Amino acid sequence: MTSESTTDLGDFAVRDANARFYRALEEADLTAMFGMWVQTEDAVCAHPGRAPLTGWAQISASWEAILTSGGNPQIITSEETVTRRGAVAWVTVTENMIADGQTGAAAALNIFEHDGERWRIVVHHAAPVLAVAS
Amino acid sequence: MTSESTTDLGDFAVRDANARFYRALEEADLTAMFGMWVQTEDAVCAHPGRAPLTGWAQISASWEAILTSGGNPQIITSEETVTRRGAVAWVTVTENMIADGQTGAAAALNIFEHDGERWRIVVHHAAPVLAVAS
Repeated sequence: MTSESTTDLGDFAVRDANARFYRALEEADLTAMFGMWVQTEDAVCAHPGRAPLTGWAQISASWEAILTSGGNPQIITSEETVTRRGAVAWVTVTENMIADGQTGAAAALNIFEHDGERWRIVVHHAAPVLAVAS
Repeated sequence: MTSESTTDLGDFAVRDANARFYRALEEADLTAMFGMWVQTEDAVCAHPGRAPLTGWAQISASWEAILTSGGNPQIITSEETVTRRGAVAWVTVTENMIADGQTGAAAALNIFEHDGERWRIVVHHAAPVLAVAS
């Protein structure tokens, strides 16, 4: 498909921001990761299986620990949806992770805010998808 | 505390809507649960450990299955935060669940939209919190 009904310039910019977030994670690029975030007390980040972190101090420390630990996973995103309401948008996306020969999936919900120039993440919420009978 | 800096009338209404969502779940009140939702294709609902459901048809079917199955858990919410941006707001909250003598926790992120009259849920995203060393 070259287009779909929910895609316009705004949605494209949100999708691009979401893609840059996962690229920063895959490439362990701390500067790029930090630049993606709304760096306030409002920000929330839940890594898969963990309790959420609130506020930029905790969140930035967690990314520094993760991105400097080595062995970052390959992440293939799928099933992306984008919803926009003015200067707020959210993306749901499946994170398919491959690391150390193992695979896992998380369902992420990322909330973005537009700061007048670009979309930044204010909430990253990753939920492990468990292998359960459907 | 009788007040906090982030609480005003708007936040109170969001907190109240969030509380009504969990009450509907605990009481297995399908009518109340359905009334909480933005019933559109935009809506997203991720039950803990499961892949997200998109659109009201899938979401309403899932709630009907859950709330009519019996044995609904007691849910004690904690660590609630509210963030508002105009007619959009989101709540992070820990769901402490007790059912059949077992306990478990999920970190939920609920996105609400104000429809001119009241706050309704457009995204419910529950992430199981796994027992991992911190």
